[in-house]
Amino acid sequence: MSEPTDINEDMRTRRRFLREGGALVSGVVVAGGLVGRKASAATDTAENLPPNVPEWMKTPGDPMGSQPYGTPSSFEKAVVKNIAKDLPQYLSASGRTPLQDLDGIITPNGLFYERHHAGVPTIDPAQHRLMLHGLVNKPLIFDMDDIRRFPSESHIYFLECSGNPNYKKPYGKTASDLVGLLSCAEWTGVSLKLVLQEAGLQAGAKWVVAEGADAAALTRSVPIEKCLDDAMLVYSQNGERLRPQQGYPLRLLLPGFEGNMSVKWLRRLRVAAEPTYSREETSKYTDLMPDGSAREFTFYMEAKSIITRPSGGQQLSAPGFHEISGIAWSGRGKVKRVDVSVDDGKTWQEARLQEPVLTRALTRFRLPWHWDGKPVVIQSRAIDETAYVQPTLAELLAVRGEDYYYHNNAIWPWHIAADGEVTNALA
Amino acid sequence: MSEPTDINEDMRTRRRFLREGGALVSGVVVAGGLVGRKASAATDTAENLPPNVPEWMKTPGDPMGSQPYGTPSSFEKAVVKNIAKDLPQYLSASGRTPLQDLDGIITPNGLFYERHHAGVPTIDPAQHRLMLHGLVNKPLIFDMDDIRRFPSESHIYFLECSGNPNYKKPYGKTASDLVGLLSCAEWTGVSLKLVLQEAGLQAGAKWVVAEGADAAALTRSVPIEKCLDDAMLVYSQNGERLRPQQGYPLRLLLPGFEGNMSVKWLRRLRVAAEPTYSREETSKYTDLMPDGSAREFTFYMEAKSIITRPSGGQQLSAPGFHEISGIAWSGRGKVKRVDVSVDDGKTWQEARLQEPVLTRALTRFRLPWHWDGKPVVIQSRAIDETAYVQPTLAELLAVRGEDYYYHNNAIWPWHIAADGEVTNALA
Repeated sequence: MSEPTDINEDMRTRRRFLREGGALVSGVVVAGGLVGRKASAATDTAENLPPNVPEWMKTPGDPMGSQPYGTPSSFEKAVVKNIAKDLPQYLSASGRTPLQDLDGIITPNGLFYERHHAGVPTIDPAQHRLMLHGLVNKPLIFDMDDIRRFPSESHIYFLECSGNPNYKKPYGKTASDLVGLLSCAEWTGVSLKLVLQEAGLQAGAKWVVAEGADAAALTRSVPIEKCLDDAMLVYSQNGERLRPQQGYPLRLLLPGFEGNMSVKWLRRLRVAAEPTYSREETSKYTDLMPDGSAREFTFYMEAKSIITRPSGGQQLSAPGFHEISGIAWSGRGKVKRVDVSVDDGKTWQEARLQEPVLTRALTRFRLPWHWDGKPVVIQSRAIDETAYVQPTLAELLAVRGEDYYYHNNAIWPWHIAADGEVTNALA
Repeated sequence: MSEPTDINEDMRTRRRFLREGGALVSGVVVAGGLVGRKASAATDTAENLPPNVPEWMKTPGDPMGSQPYGTPSSFEKAVVKNIAKDLPQYLSASGRTPLQDLDGIITPNGLFYERHHAGVPTIDPAQHRLMLHGLVNKPLIFDMDDIRRFPSESHIYFLECSGNPNYKKPYGKTASDLVGLLSCAEWTGVSLKLVLQEAGLQAGAKWVVAEGADAAALTRSVPIEKCLDDAMLVYSQNGERLRPQQGYPLRLLLPGFEGNMSVKWLRRLRVAAEPTYSREETSKYTDLMPDGSAREFTFYMEAKSIITRPSGGQQLSAPGFHEISGIAWSGRGKVKRVDVSVDDGKTWQEARLQEPVLTRALTRFRLPWHWDGKPVVIQSRAIDETAYVQPTLAELLAVRGEDYYYHNNAIWPWHIAADGEVTNALA
């Protein structure tokens, strides 16, 4: 392939940024502010820029035999899980998804969030068993081959920790700091309903108590209605088998419910008349209300959204056109609408939702925006199909008080300074 | 958590497999053949099985700090790309997705198929540029920040090599051997239409010639109609940035077209009146017809499907219930229907398609099946929304002759022996 002859040096000075694409993103006016700033950048005179041939075209690239299972580019090494340093690793650990660096709705398995109460067990799938007992006609034990032989189904669902974020200051700096205990994957497994039908439920079966095979034996009670609805026993995420951190070889998945209930390393399901009042549903994952009562069995993750681009820790390179992009989700079903404000909440515009909008999955929203270069506060609010509207932090605090910990689904605004720096507007 | 008291040893002998779940998978009759066979297995008497506490619950598990970017379980180390040993690594290499080990429709990035003509270049995204020139009003050069500032979109699309598989014997043993140059991801990037509008197309603009920044400078000519339809400039796959093997930091994506046209490491788009007749569209990626003419510019990947479970290399553990599961896809749009035959093609049943069925994406199909333990040949055929029906290999060979190489979308049957071994029925 010969080099082009119809390009000359001054083409670089003619670089111009996005002119509005008409029907595709109607109503946007885009500035040409990039031209002068970038045409003078040192990199633009480098030998390896078009029409010249860059260094990496002059010799063959890397062979691939050394990577039968691939990894990201070395230039992306900063895009990793955001691991909490203040939690004792073996007792209570978490790693957050770097949401501000991701696009679309799928979280790659290597960046899926983690939350453990006693480390990550190493379980031989050939040795693993699931026991189903209690108020059933036939107690059963399944090995993984048994589980795999059931009819399967796949669904894209989000999973979110209920303490994402908590209500305590200091608030985090980035989208990952705030709501990075959130990810979304395509899950494959078996309908729990089908497995329960295999055992046969007895009269009085109102709860299913799920136990994990980690050293914490994390245990949660699940209402039978959920178990007979969309609950799944999951063995694969994004095509491949579950990662150890996500419950390999088998986990419960309760779409839309707080993440800790989707018990990982699932070894036991006990059908019962009453909840078991385990540690994780009494001393943890409950909340003290202002009147002194405890709010318990707070299953649903309510509608929520956050702008991931631009977001805290990022920098707008210049005034002019920028797309505002973020994610919205609801444990109650589909996201119906996302509004975005670019004037500190005074007015709101409806964002475009990326199709397909799936129930209990992340939904990507986008709004074209022209930044005039002045300080501004931007934020998003989700409305789900139940017509629930994501609240402000002030609204939540007024109802729940300052001793509340879990289920903070507040709107989170970002401040953009005149120099383009994006920071947490509530920090 | 105390151990259960309502379980006793003989529960294991009561293990029974799937009884039909009524409306969920209507019409299936399931055998209880597993019980005796497995209850006597040595593993079932092991100390670590329920209701006993397994070893991995007795001590805390692994901390996670060592894996800020996660990897699969060590028990899944055999699930890797299937790398062709017979191709010179630097000149022409491929790595196939292990389709028989995957579920759902998303291919995890670590297992996404690869096909390179001169190795994998290492490109610094800060140094990378895309040049757009030729029959445009304003030639432009973009850096990655420029590309990122365009309005973005995300779509789940499959990508498939046109030589997947070729027509030459010996045919492969597994689904990966046969059609593993096929993967599916959620892609995020910019509409190519939007970028072309930014430059302004001149009269006579009929083709866009795309060039990669690898040492092969892989170059393909794309009809302007595709460029103004669903073509994308892509920088992310499954949420994170493109992997180096998939074109980091920028690739073209032409949904439904043969994979090599979705030029990786994209550095140049030249708008032209004619195709460029590059190596990859003349000496390669064309086919000799029986009449001596060459079939060229064979863009679309026609409708296709394959059963991945059970498939070649796998083993049915026993007669009785087995789900037949596979993937179907069409470069022309959505999969409309998948038929499955379990009697060597004599009769066909309609499989269930997993929703959402997306255009130019993999579609997972499933059929409940009761295997009577006798030798059998199973196969699937896809029908897409254009009403095109996936052909048999004999039908394709009759039209194309034996010198044909690319675009083999034949039905591929699997033979299941009485002992449960699954093999390629056409090998």
